[in-house]
Amino acid sequence: MAAANKIDALLIDLDGVIYQGTRLIPGVGEFMKWIDRENIPHLFVTNTSSRPRADISSKLGSLGITVNQTDILTPPVAACSWLMEHTSGPAALIVPDGTKAEFKEIDPLDENAEGGASAVVIGDIGTDWTFRKLNRAFRLLMDEPRPVLVALGLTRYWQAADGLQLDVAPFVKALEYAAGCEAVVLGKPSPDFFNEALHQIGCAADSTMMIGDDIVGDVQAAQHVGLFGTLVKTGKFRPHDLDKSPHPDLILDSIADLPAWWENQ
Amino acid sequence: MAAANKIDALLIDLDGVIYQGTRLIPGVGEFMKWIDRENIPHLFVTNTSSRPRADISSKLGSLGITVNQTDILTPPVAACSWLMEHTSGPAALIVPDGTKAEFKEIDPLDENAEGGASAVVIGDIGTDWTFRKLNRAFRLLMDEPRPVLVALGLTRYWQAADGLQLDVAPFVKALEYAAGCEAVVLGKPSPDFFNEALHQIGCAADSTMMIGDDIVGDVQAAQHVGLFGTLVKTGKFRPHDLDKSPHPDLILDSIADLPAWWENQ
Repeated sequence: MAAANKIDALLIDLDGVIYQGTRLIPGVGEFMKWIDRENIPHLFVTNTSSRPRADISSKLGSLGITVNQTDILTPPVAACSWLMEHTSGPAALIVPDGTKAEFKEIDPLDENAEGGASAVVIGDIGTDWTFRKLNRAFRLLMDEPRPVLVALGLTRYWQAADGLQLDVAPFVKALEYAAGCEAVVLGKPSPDFFNEALHQIGCAADSTMMIGDDIVGDVQAAQHVGLFGTLVKTGKFRPHDLDKSPHPDLILDSIADLPAWWENQ
Repeated sequence: MAAANKIDALLIDLDGVIYQGTRLIPGVGEFMKWIDRENIPHLFVTNTSSRPRADISSKLGSLGITVNQTDILTPPVAACSWLMEHTSGPAALIVPDGTKAEFKEIDPLDENAEGGASAVVIGDIGTDWTFRKLNRAFRLLMDEPRPVLVALGLTRYWQAADGLQLDVAPFVKALEYAAGCEAVVLGKPSPDFFNEALHQIGCAADSTMMIGDDIVGDVQAAQHVGLFGTLVKTGKFRPHDLDKSPHPDLILDSIADLPAWWENQ
């Protein structure tokens, strides 16, 4: 486990920690000034996989805070970086149009090819899924040498306007079972995602804090890979979260309270 | 484990045990006469889920042996029987057209309904899968009270004319993961299927023999639920199958040798 007095870098969840819906969490403006002034290595980590970082950065801008795109890690960005580090050769990109731009360093496999991929990247393409598309991904995965299956997160479903809608995870599970493989998951709570985040800021797990509002997906998942896990009582936090084991390493009312805690260490 | 001297009923695999491709296994004609003469309770159990029993019975007829449809258990027939025993109310039947006839005792849910199912039955519908169809199955499964997910087997894929093709299992796994449920699988090697077969012939596991050519899917799977497992050296049998643990309770060159063994018990 990371010790409090060793912490010198931050991974920060966005939704529920920095903003909630269309407004900033109170005190975030001051927090952002502090992090800049102290020059603390940090990365905002979010599971948003349908929009490019430019959109997220401009949303934050419209709320009044400046965050560079390079300080945001999303599943597509983590996937692109992971692919560059671990594979060579073309990748089949079965991802939403909105995030294709994040893969510009990757050589995309021809859309009709049924072999020759070094990786098969799967995102939430929703109603664009067809049997043919899923079967093509499967055939690519069965090709020799076997490519790696990369998943942009492992969300099961979401609430669409007309009802619940399947997200990326069921399709990942279908392909894993059919092809007998295990996906590299780039999104919280996967260890691969946290490790990629640490790789990007060049920091070790035991000197980095993850701060989030989700006791399971943010805090416990980060603790699982050796980070210091901080839970904030904003966003989706509910009092019964505190009954869950393992406990957070630190609990704060809000991220606005982090500077005071930090100065005391 | 079933003891050899207690055996008084038979579950018999078809493909590779009774016939191979378009011809009978030698001696099967005599075997069929023996089983009729001795009046031994039996059921032919097959994972064929795309064709009705009438087709299988007429194929066997064309090979020269008479098998009543009621002596054949397929995944759709097992599913229909299981549904009648364990559920009430309409079932969503997402199954191949060729087997819809096997569900005539079941009240089918309206094709556009997104709730109100007592069960969601999934078969290999191949290229008929669309996102909308899979998402509808998911929404049905999330409805309260939660319906049961019933799978016509758990085959991962098959060799189609133009390459490998996803079978039913990946879609079952997708739905299980999305809806957080576990499917009742009616097909070998699932215990549910063997139990349904025993229920149909009214026999206990420890007095019934399963005879098949698949060391895993037929023999070990049957032994797992307490049946006496017999492996025949026809069909897909390969010598290295004998290295696998647990061993069959009995090994025969072919089903034609069963009567001689039986008479010695």
